[in-house]
Amino acid sequence: MENIIDKMIKKSIEKNTVLIVGLDPNLQNFPKFLTESINNDYKDPKNLEKIENAIFNFNKIVIDATFEHSLGIKPQLAYYEIFGSYGIKALERTIDYAKTKDLFIINDGKRGDIGSTSKVYAEAFLGDTLISGDMVTVNPYLGEDSYNPFIEYANKFNKGLFILVKTSNHSSKDIQDLIIKDKNEPVYIDLAKKLSEISNVNKGEYGYSSIGAVIGATYPKIVKKLRTILKHNAFLVPGYGFQGAKAADLKVCFDKNGNGAFIVSARSIIFSYLEKKYNKNISTLTEKEMTEIIKEKAIFSKDELNLTRFN
Amino acid sequence: MENIIDKMIKKSIEKNTVLIVGLDPNLQNFPKFLTESINNDYKDPKNLEKIENAIFNFNKIVIDATFEHSLGIKPQLAYYEIFGSYGIKALERTIDYAKTKDLFIINDGKRGDIGSTSKVYAEAFLGDTLISGDMVTVNPYLGEDSYNPFIEYANKFNKGLFILVKTSNHSSKDIQDLIIKDKNEPVYIDLAKKLSEISNVNKGEYGYSSIGAVIGATYPKIVKKLRTILKHNAFLVPGYGFQGAKAADLKVCFDKNGNGAFIVSARSIIFSYLEKKYNKNISTLTEKEMTEIIKEKAIFSKDELNLTRFN
Repeated sequence: MENIIDKMIKKSIEKNTVLIVGLDPNLQNFPKFLTESINNDYKDPKNLEKIENAIFNFNKIVIDATFEHSLGIKPQLAYYEIFGSYGIKALERTIDYAKTKDLFIINDGKRGDIGSTSKVYAEAFLGDTLISGDMVTVNPYLGEDSYNPFIEYANKFNKGLFILVKTSNHSSKDIQDLIIKDKNEPVYIDLAKKLSEISNVNKGEYGYSSIGAVIGATYPKIVKKLRTILKHNAFLVPGYGFQGAKAADLKVCFDKNGNGAFIVSARSIIFSYLEKKYNKNISTLTEKEMTEIIKEKAIFSKDELNLTRFN
Repeated sequence: MENIIDKMIKKSIEKNTVLIVGLDPNLQNFPKFLTESINNDYKDPKNLEKIENAIFNFNKIVIDATFEHSLGIKPQLAYYEIFGSYGIKALERTIDYAKTKDLFIINDGKRGDIGSTSKVYAEAFLGDTLISGDMVTVNPYLGEDSYNPFIEYANKFNKGLFILVKTSNHSSKDIQDLIIKDKNEPVYIDLAKKLSEISNVNKGEYGYSSIGAVIGATYPKIVKKLRTILKHNAFLVPGYGFQGAKAADLKVCFDKNGNGAFIVSARSIIFSYLEKKYNKNISTLTEKEMTEIIKEKAIFSKDELNLTRFN
């Protein structure tokens, strides 16, 4: 049966891209034309309605500029949650709009809780709800109770999840890199082995399970090692661009056919117009300029990633 | 300076209770009079509006029945998020209402991400926003990058956080109990020692930092050990009641004055009317009956906890 990763890989072949655009709508970086009458009062309904519209309009511009060159979007939920019900409304509208452009939706919430609660999160993000997408990121600190309900809902709705294994940030070492006594290997390897084991069911046509892994691109040696353990798990890879990982570092994420990994770029695409070389000012930037720069950066990123994965 | 834990302890002395009521509004357990015209379509705005009202009305009944006997509420965010913007609206209304009853609000989201994103979550839950409360639960799997922004915002707004150290569920052992090679102790002890170290700043009048810890009541021996390490960290303790921990097990959570821990009870209070001994049916249960049973259970829990902590 065609699972969610098959669908994503087929689409990535059709569109020739593995780029996922991270939608982290930080208002501070928005061009003035979107935020003109907005203030810092995050409790005032009138202001929050304007913020909801600004976020949706920002995301719409980004989606319009990038959808031909990207495979999906990854909304970072914190940036929506901060505006309460208004932010979540902007998320719902963004998800609806992205669906009209045939994009995959990966909700980046890093949720995870005791079993009965994880089940509710799983339904929220993988079931029939307003905020449901195709995939969701899951935090494994509470153990298998916390991710099993997501696997159950992924199977039920033919969707999937990406479990955090080794994250892109500096302090990911604090817990993830601790060496386990009896096994003489770090926590992230132990977790990877466990995930590899449970991923033998529901493998799709390309050999990948609907249980994926979040693997930060900022540690290429670790990525290489994890690729050999997580043979049947697609990677969701943050860290490319703004966080410092270069496209060349990403070669190790892919299988021999250049599949099996989806690469996220957020700030370096959606706020590309802030780069000095463009010499633009957010107070005067127009929608047309914004669109052109973002599109250019998306094409550049797509091409750079293709060069890496097919070389 | 009086920090958030001082405020909570003072109020707990004044009201003679350390009970936190967990608000996990699972519609399936609601009495019929609240859900009469609601169906299972979680995408239909009209239905979702009814769900928003049902959740708020349910929470209002629970708050009215318990506020004199409890210190605060702990909304479990999954149960709101599943209904998208409508669920979050119900959360906002619940938080507003709980404030009128002078209750502390602990948002149980178990959030945590790379630094730049955690900062946004921290502002969402501890800053000036619609969903902001007094405390928030934080998942440490991404290391100190993930909780430092919460500490920063807690300091800025005189609020606090509870970091997951040892959770109440069975599979908490999967990662939290792994024995670290060089230290010969489990991950949760290593984390506890680290948290203890960073909690030496901002200690309040009662000796507690605004950085608390989530410690599941289901492992009394571990709680006892953690109490000796986390000398200056208040505990948020889930697992009492429905999850199986008895009040007597909780003695070890408290300091010699019976302070330093806040005990959560969710299902066993808010859905107490489902207990067989009451012989009630949710199709016919009245608001008055519901209120009386919940109130009785809150009083029982408060008294049981007081007996434990002062004996």
